[in-house]
Amino acid sequence: MTTRIPVAVLGATGLVGQEFVRRLEEHPWFELVAVGASERSTGRPYGDALRHRSCDPRPVTCDLTISPCTPDAIDAPIVFSALDGAVAGPIGEAFARAGAFVVSNARNHRLDDDVPLLIPEVNADHLELIERQRAVRGWSGAIVTNPNCATAVICLALAPLHQAFGLREVWVTTLQAVSGAGYPGVPSLDILGNVVPWIDGEEEKIVRESRKILGGRAHPGEFGVSAQVTRVPVEHGHTACIAARFARRVTTVEATSALREWRSAVADLGLPSAPTTPLRVRAEQDRPQPRRDVDRGDGMTVSVGRVREDGNGGIRLVALGHNLVRGAAGAALLNAELCVSALPALAGPAKIPASEERWPSG
Amino acid sequence: MTTRIPVAVLGATGLVGQEFVRRLEEHPWFELVAVGASERSTGRPYGDALRHRSCDPRPVTCDLTISPCTPDAIDAPIVFSALDGAVAGPIGEAFARAGAFVVSNARNHRLDDDVPLLIPEVNADHLELIERQRAVRGWSGAIVTNPNCATAVICLALAPLHQAFGLREVWVTTLQAVSGAGYPGVPSLDILGNVVPWIDGEEEKIVRESRKILGGRAHPGEFGVSAQVTRVPVEHGHTACIAARFARRVTTVEATSALREWRSAVADLGLPSAPTTPLRVRAEQDRPQPRRDVDRGDGMTVSVGRVREDGNGGIRLVALGHNLVRGAAGAALLNAELCVSALPALAGPAKIPASEERWPSG
Amino acid sequence: MTTRIPVAVLGATGLVGQEFVRRLEEHPWFELVAVGASERSTGRPYGDALRHRSCDPRPVTCDLTISPCTPDAIDAPIVFSALDGAVAGPIGEAFARAGAFVVSNARNHRLDDDVPLLIPEVNADHLELIERQRAVRGWSGAIVTNPNCATAVICLALAPLHQAFGLREVWVTTLQAVSGAGYPGVPSLDILGNVVPWIDGEEEKIVRESRKILGGRAHPGEFGVSAQVTRVPVEHGHTACIAARFARRVTTVEATSALREWRSAVADLGLPSAPTTPLRVRAEQDRPQPRRDVDRGDGMTVSVGRVREDGNGGIRLVALGHNLVRGAAGAALLNAELCVSALPALAGPAKIPASEERWPSG
Amino acid sequence: MTTRIPVAVLGATGLVGQEFVRRLEEHPWFELVAVGASERSTGRPYGDALRHRSCDPRPVTCDLTISPCTPDAIDAPIVFSALDGAVAGPIGEAFARAGAFVVSNARNHRLDDDVPLLIPEVNADHLELIERQRAVRGWSGAIVTNPNCATAVICLALAPLHQAFGLREVWVTTLQAVSGAGYPGVPSLDILGNVVPWIDGEEEKIVRESRKILGGRAHPGEFGVSAQVTRVPVEHGHTACIAARFARRVTTVEATSALREWRSAVADLGLPSAPTTPLRVRAEQDRPQPRRDVDRGDGMTVSVGRVREDGNGGIRLVALGHNLVRGAAGAALLNAELCVSALPALAGPAKIPASEERWPSG
Repeated sequence: MTTRIPVAVLGATGLVGQEFVRRLEEHPWFELVAVGASERSTGRPYGDALRHRSCDPRPVTCDLTISPCTPDAIDAPIVFSALDGAVAGPIGEAFARAGAFVVSNARNHRLDDDVPLLIPEVNADHLELIERQRAVRGWSGAIVTNPNCATAVICLALAPLHQAFGLREVWVTTLQAVSGAGYPGVPSLDILGNVVPWIDGEEEKIVRESRKILGGRAHPGEFGVSAQVTRVPVEHGHTACIAARFARRVTTVEATSALREWRSAVADLGLPSAPTTPLRVRAEQDRPQPRRDVDRGDGMTVSVGRVREDGNGGIRLVALGHNLVRGAAGAALLNAELCVSALPALAGPAKIPASEERWPSG
Repeated sequence: MTTRIPVAVLGATGLVGQEFVRRLEEHPWFELVAVGASERSTGRPYGDALRHRSCDPRPVTCDLTISPCTPDAIDAPIVFSALDGAVAGPIGEAFARAGAFVVSNARNHRLDDDVPLLIPEVNADHLELIERQRAVRGWSGAIVTNPNCATAVICLALAPLHQAFGLREVWVTTLQAVSGAGYPGVPSLDILGNVVPWIDGEEEKIVRESRKILGGRAHPGEFGVSAQVTRVPVEHGHTACIAARFARRVTTVEATSALREWRSAVADLGLPSAPTTPLRVRAEQDRPQPRRDVDRGDGMTVSVGRVREDGNGGIRLVALGHNLVRGAAGAALLNAELCVSALPALAGPAKIPASEERWPSG
Repeated sequence: MTTRIPVAVLGATGLVGQEFVRRLEEHPWFELVAVGASERSTGRPYGDALRHRSCDPRPVTCDLTISPCTPDAIDAPIVFSALDGAVAGPIGEAFARAGAFVVSNARNHRLDDDVPLLIPEVNADHLELIERQRAVRGWSGAIVTNPNCATAVICLALAPLHQAFGLREVWVTTLQAVSGAGYPGVPSLDILGNVVPWIDGEEEKIVRESRKILGGRAHPGEFGVSAQVTRVPVEHGHTACIAARFARRVTTVEATSALREWRSAVADLGLPSAPTTPLRVRAEQDRPQPRRDVDRGDGMTVSVGRVREDGNGGIRLVALGHNLVRGAAGAALLNAELCVSALPALAGPAKIPASEERWPSG
Repeated sequence: MTTRIPVAVLGATGLVGQEFVRRLEEHPWFELVAVGASERSTGRPYGDALRHRSCDPRPVTCDLTISPCTPDAIDAPIVFSALDGAVAGPIGEAFARAGAFVVSNARNHRLDDDVPLLIPEVNADHLELIERQRAVRGWSGAIVTNPNCATAVICLALAPLHQAFGLREVWVTTLQAVSGAGYPGVPSLDILGNVVPWIDGEEEKIVRESRKILGGRAHPGEFGVSAQVTRVPVEHGHTACIAARFARRVTTVEATSALREWRSAVADLGLPSAPTTPLRVRAEQDRPQPRRDVDRGDGMTVSVGRVREDGNGGIRLVALGHNLVRGAAGAALLNAELCVSALPALAGPAKIPASEERWPSG
């Protein structure tokens, strides 16, 4: 117990915050020692402050007193941020300045050119941006981010194809679950038996974040993205219907092979949140489906199906992933594990204890 | 009463069949005189043979005795076919051979190059194919068809843009309602809180039918179509998320103007089922939505929204239409009205009375 | 036009408020001249202040400027209140003191023993309580109320049986639609594919209001009520599963006859919102159903089915009604029509013009 | 492995059959050696015969060849029947005559007075009926049954109250999940955003089975039951809203205590499918809810909430259980475990090996 790294969760009472807490309760490397939330909740026991319980925290977790989201109040080497984008920016910066590794799910900073926007299996090497970040900003800590929930699913599905064939153009339509909007989120009157073809800011995030993730460290990918998002009456799981064209014409067989044979960049690191199969390719004609496939790999597996040549000289496929896990809390946990595993040198000056023997040396 | 044209509905007990019946009960030109269905139902009163009542037919309709689907049993100058594609082909041909105008919603014959595949507002001139059809096949009657339910929505939305700018490539993802699968159709266990990324044969229909409809009379349109269909837990209304590229780059303003100013090819004919506004362009960022917009124009209006330039040099938009109306029964009724209005010469040799004064002369 | 009575709607921007507005736009007796709402909206055009549009008001309605909910700002002889119960009490009183007939859908005052709690078809005679109300409170106006949305459905279904056989005990379980909670109301995460066995305050309303409505003018009905409410993923329409025992044992045939032959107390008054059939008894074994039956009688008909003897010596039945219409806006409109029709004497001192010839004399 | 008892599942391809298979794949006492289904499937590998896969069977299970449902084709000492009631009767009898313990989920035989209708925690002593059954019918095997899915939930919730206070009258309204109707089962068009107040034969089952279960071995319970069932758009989990009156007036505190302190009749037997908490009493005002509570105790726990005195001198509560588990496959497995545990003497003449040391002696 004493060998685990103390961590905190900011914005712990929301839907993503609760998912962080639930996963940290059983985490082999991390120990949840503090929870932060807005003024409305500070000072109350965590268990009492949840308006909507998406799970049942353990008694010891329920007894944690909610702290204000300031480095004075919360002292932990790793701080997970599930804060709303309206407030997450300056709070994250304050923690990084104070020496913490801020592993943020918020939209802020994702596009800053000295902040890693990570899907470890895809672009773990972007972690190097931290050096520049610290140099430029003079921080002893750092900020690393994970992508928007839909973008995470799209990029995991496209990464093997991009690496093999070179993306040129992407068209994507998403069908997104209501839990992506948090709680209370989408009113039932808006979505029961209905589809809403709009989510505020989502399409721009998909366009810009996917180019940063799939591009090199220093420059965004040189491909175009045309995105349409929709909200559908599904509880969990974002579905992305993707068409893509590449530097050359690609066959169904080639695309399927590239997806099946793709190898995660962090497969050998033994990261606890890394699923055995980050990308599962299904052959059935009617899969993936959110209700049947969303929990694969404890929510960290992206399921891909219906891979085929389309009528415009490109490849079509459908990808599905769990928005609260692969698209939020699970993604951030994996990012933190990558930092711990891969940054022993960086760990020195920051608050992370440097030499836990149980961690892989990277 | 006596001046209305007698018509029959084949496959009258299904979901589309009932929609035909409901609309014919109030039709100013047509009078429902016969209903046909499969062996299981023949001889029974129509009202007793409905497994699933999607509406409440009038007593006089309920009392109609169901006939076998043969020209011997059903004698009417216009016969609407809501039959399943597995049996609709030879039955439709038998009626056409016997002199009836077969206005078919079935998938059969749609792609035959001597059979009109009509959306009257878009390609009323394709009706001329009937002359060739009769000449080649030696029929005194004829077969005209309407497109697949999703294709009807897509083509109405794309027609103004194609006419103005010349389509080159289309990417479309549909979110289709369960009523598109008929009754009992989609099991609730498959679709409650779920999305299914597949509908048998649907994508090929979209690709091929849209090229025939938007092309000229003699040759399919020279544009590519990449289609992905999905089923969503919506009762009525197919949503299509469309990206398109044209012979030249088109701006948001140009696209919106083309859609708003577009004029139906049959606007002056006074066809009873033609909506005042076949295409309604909405400016709200979160429309169209199936539950709020599906019944516009008595189900015959296609609603379009979110028109904008996309990241790949094309135009994006979302289109929505009622699959049972604009995509099935309403479409076929409009086709029949077009035939009656535009084919006075043709009407002679067939069974349609030639000189009803109340019909427009075309 | 000039002969219609000017009316106002308080709380006009909410879900019930919009239903009031929609129905008033086409009302033959009333003319909507003012809309009131909370401070957040006052001074804005009505059309701009709607967060959620459940319908499309006419341009002339959209242009109405929203007023504060005070008698100084709103001068109309009849004022409909769709205000939230937290504020409706004193506001309604202020208008009544100032001389207006306040026809309120709010929960306040419903159980006051000098305030009529009306379902016109059932207890129109309770209107006489107004005399006492005015005497006691010294108001030139008055307050009349309609019941809670579930109670309205239950009482309409029970009234014929109570009148014929004398209710002794009632057990009721409701399955209530999400629109009953207003907008944004029930979060989709709470209700998609789910049932919630609780609605704040609802069960007590059913118990107490039903006894007042079905009792005599001066005393509540002497029967017990055991109520369990649930929320279900239905858009509109509250279903009530009712078991009841009477002063004597009642057969299925007797109960069905009593329901079918029951005659509304206001059948002869020609009230515009009174449906031809306030209670429709269905013989099919699987009806009523919200999606199929909710709009009967323009939402004012309560559908009843599955009438039968049960295993405890009582009668069981299922009743369904539209919560926003029969349970809210439509109910209040009918109450106002009853007041106008039945209170010519009362009308004198208040603001209602006394002698419109087109109104029935009552 | 060799010490496990070989078992077979009849009707293995349906929804309940698949749940049997899934649970047997991990069962410590039983080994699935044969699967039976209708003629349509016999001879095919199990994995290929599933129309709808509610789970992913192991490869070894998928390779099992489907047998006809006859004792000649299937030889196992315990046979689970998930057959449809239309065919289950004679098939079950044939297996019992041939010496098998038939543990049946079908509706047949449940009310026969020599056939145990078991909820082991409640009426394990009814197992003694087997002696009479064998004597009367001359079978070396036997048939034991579990109740209808809704009845199982209702009886588990009422048993502690009946035992403590003596039931006199019960009123129950159920809200039942679509999986209760099997696959394809309920068409989505019937249930999306809807409620259906009828399920064929269900109310009679609740009335009659609950009296047999809660009565003594020889005679049904002397209480009346008034039942109304409904179908709701929920995937899994039947909710029962129950009012009950007892031999004396019972307080909320007494009822809650009786429920909380109740002890299962088989708590000491170590049956693998017996949950730690067969009945969980919740204090939150808005629980139980199907989506949140259905999987408690691996689907075997019934959750109870909203326990309170009602307006008719009785107690109200809401109970929830998993229809496919506690109401079907899990219930039958528990029954089989009880037989193995409690019937060593009976086991002799039948096919069950008599002296497995690992089984409790009962």
